[in-house]
Amino acid sequence: MDLPRTTERLSHTAQLRAFREGTRSPRQALEHCLEAIDRLEGSVKAFAALGIEDARARADEATRRYADGRPLSPIDGMVVGVKDIIDTADFPTEMNSPLFTGNVPKADAAAVRAVRQGGGIIIGKTVTTEFAVGRSGPTTHPLAPERTPGGSSSGSAAGAAAGFFDAAFGTQTQGSTIRPASFCGVVGYKPTLHALPTAGVHPLSGALDHLGLIAGDLDDAWSLARWVSQVAPQPGHRGLDGPLGVPLAPLSLSRVALLKTAGFDELDADTAAAFEDLLSRLSGNGVAIVAPQDDAELQSVVTDLEDVSERSLDVLAFEMQTPFADFVATSPDAIGPRIHDLMERARAMSRDAYRDHLAFRDSLRTRVARLRAAYDAFLLPAASEPAPEGLDYTGRRTMLVYWTFLGLPAFSLPLMSVRGLPFGLQVAGFEHGDYALARQCRFLMELGRA
Amino acid sequence: MDLPRTTERLSHTAQLRAFREGTRSPRQALEHCLEAIDRLEGSVKAFAALGIEDARARADEATRRYADGRPLSPIDGMVVGVKDIIDTADFPTEMNSPLFTGNVPKADAAAVRAVRQGGGIIIGKTVTTEFAVGRSGPTTHPLAPERTPGGSSSGSAAGAAAGFFDAAFGTQTQGSTIRPASFCGVVGYKPTLHALPTAGVHPLSGALDHLGLIAGDLDDAWSLARWVSQVAPQPGHRGLDGPLGVPLAPLSLSRVALLKTAGFDELDADTAAAFEDLLSRLSGNGVAIVAPQDDAELQSVVTDLEDVSERSLDVLAFEMQTPFADFVATSPDAIGPRIHDLMERARAMSRDAYRDHLAFRDSLRTRVARLRAAYDAFLLPAASEPAPEGLDYTGRRTMLVYWTFLGLPAFSLPLMSVRGLPFGLQVAGFEHGDYALARQCRFLMELGRA
Repeated sequence: MDLPRTTERLSHTAQLRAFREGTRSPRQALEHCLEAIDRLEGSVKAFAALGIEDARARADEATRRYADGRPLSPIDGMVVGVKDIIDTADFPTEMNSPLFTGNVPKADAAAVRAVRQGGGIIIGKTVTTEFAVGRSGPTTHPLAPERTPGGSSSGSAAGAAAGFFDAAFGTQTQGSTIRPASFCGVVGYKPTLHALPTAGVHPLSGALDHLGLIAGDLDDAWSLARWVSQVAPQPGHRGLDGPLGVPLAPLSLSRVALLKTAGFDELDADTAAAFEDLLSRLSGNGVAIVAPQDDAELQSVVTDLEDVSERSLDVLAFEMQTPFADFVATSPDAIGPRIHDLMERARAMSRDAYRDHLAFRDSLRTRVARLRAAYDAFLLPAASEPAPEGLDYTGRRTMLVYWTFLGLPAFSLPLMSVRGLPFGLQVAGFEHGDYALARQCRFLMELGRA
Repeated sequence: MDLPRTTERLSHTAQLRAFREGTRSPRQALEHCLEAIDRLEGSVKAFAALGIEDARARADEATRRYADGRPLSPIDGMVVGVKDIIDTADFPTEMNSPLFTGNVPKADAAAVRAVRQGGGIIIGKTVTTEFAVGRSGPTTHPLAPERTPGGSSSGSAAGAAAGFFDAAFGTQTQGSTIRPASFCGVVGYKPTLHALPTAGVHPLSGALDHLGLIAGDLDDAWSLARWVSQVAPQPGHRGLDGPLGVPLAPLSLSRVALLKTAGFDELDADTAAAFEDLLSRLSGNGVAIVAPQDDAELQSVVTDLEDVSERSLDVLAFEMQTPFADFVATSPDAIGPRIHDLMERARAMSRDAYRDHLAFRDSLRTRVARLRAAYDAFLLPAASEPAPEGLDYTGRRTMLVYWTFLGLPAFSLPLMSVRGLPFGLQVAGFEHGDYALARQCRFLMELGRA
């Protein structure tokens, strides 16, 4: 299938052998990114800050390491963007908020430190919506400048699609990694909660904040995530499993569950048709897809997912009070309306309600875990539509909040096209099943594109 | 028993009725603290920053609320100190590090916000060792100025003992709340891991960092902790159980386990005798105390606790790398030698070793939880000695790291005296059993002082 694309380039993983053999260098690969930036950044506006000369110096160092046969890691020379709510000690970290204009953190976030330790090249900071939850930024869709690239990891998704970097960090508290990845036609990956470190990421909700990855290529997304979890696992957590530096081998799926919630009613006819079409293609290739009406246990999980949207907003609002209640109190005019609304919502909440949401989540997680015996993974659309028109509205969250609230891993795979725009398949997995899920995604990519 | 004390004053909890009846006011109670500060702070040096006039304004507001019959919470008018690694939007937060001189955070830490929301009075920032792990501060022991008050929550413990405030926040990653509380003869409380919020506390190790409480009185420590967990539970966690605003009713202990580790060999003769003496007093009052040699399951736990000291240092060092590896790299001279040593230790570690420590912790936690059927709580000394001479060395950590590493709740109760100096009984409990443990501590306080 032909997918809409802005640029053709090899992934970092695909270039590794050439780096090792000296037929291509990380510096050359970086220059390829810089050409794309030169050509497209003027309209895409993916970057909040960009460090070209430092990136060239880092790429030259990586080039020398490969020449010496001593790369630091599987991501040595990978070009990486960093969402601008994630601390960097060199670039400013401004959260797309006037409260943080000129803010330069004293140290790198854990994930950023891991990239540098592995020889990765931080090329710049990518545009975020205000604190990853409020007002949108200036970033446009690389294929359709009048459309949103999605948010909140707007610049990470648009820049990955435009070939500005191999991969970028995003975050996801509701849908902020998977949705823009779907809109921009790239791979999005939100790992199991606490598999990747959030130290140095401006907090919204500790129970919901995930570090996410967005990349043009599945292997690059996985490779970066896997490396970060090697060097800097979330404190108290074991990080991701799976070997380091080995491209993903396809793992076939024999039986998957369709998470057909009431949210499917939001899909327009074209989107629904594209999704049905993809499902048929998968069934035709031996993947059994079970709908909720054919499995009472699955249906009961799907029914309870309807509750997630409101509960998730409550948890977000309640936990956001540190530090946003202070920001709203002391600098009301510097804070966008959505954050004001969320603080209003929090004020109306009790700890008992909050505790009830956590208990609901625990119970639903347990029931999802029981489905492991019956299914390899779950499928649903990675958004409710392709990228909408306009830059203010970053799209519906309905399809995204389910697996975010549960803290379970999910990918968006660029396997569909709707009205000429990319659209993602969301592949959702089981707790700590990230590595298997990534391999299953490799299988689906091959099948879906066949 | 007569314990060494610097000052006699009523706890906040004990004054609540008088506040409500108007026979005493929060402003009068604050002035009592200010008199102690005026008399003793010159030698004790508990404060890194002090805000007397703002405290008076807040106390007057609290006074008016009680007069109107509308206090905001059970801690309305409580005078609270805040360890200087915990963010406050008004006072600087300097971590006792030149890297943070003049640092004024943009928002309060979650716990500080909770205090303000409940009408508590933040009187100032208390001296910490460098980032709660490195070089000592200037604080002295209130009863013996040539001795350390213990660390790292030095100012919180010394100030509580000197009557500068009703209670203070400390933190504990190894022994930083329980040890100084023991040295200074006040109550220390380290809750179950994640029962209290650490947002806005400068991180050392997310798997080990606990917000702690230090107070002259058990009810004040509990009341403050319970309130904080009401307003700002750690994201994703349910916080503390138990009613709000009710003084602790004693809960008797019938059978406790003695955590007699090899660390007991460190106790000098006087300290060992004081501890034995207290145990005899408790046995004489009907508390059965079981030693490891009389219970194979307990013995096996106690044996494994020997491993905790080294494993705990590994976890601390590994997790400290964000952000301390950056600090050491970019500002080596501004960072004390102990932090350099820990970063050296981290560099020699693998993620596999780290994962092994976490697995060991999980397994030991499970075995401790099984002892719930046999014991009401665990007892051990709250340090290895009374406050040592000199200000540089804040005392041994041996007795403290066990329950910190496990993330289980512990109190230090000022129930002993060794060579004229206070010494604490450490009462250690089960996961999420904080409320029962606090009530058992009330029982032990009454028994131990009888």
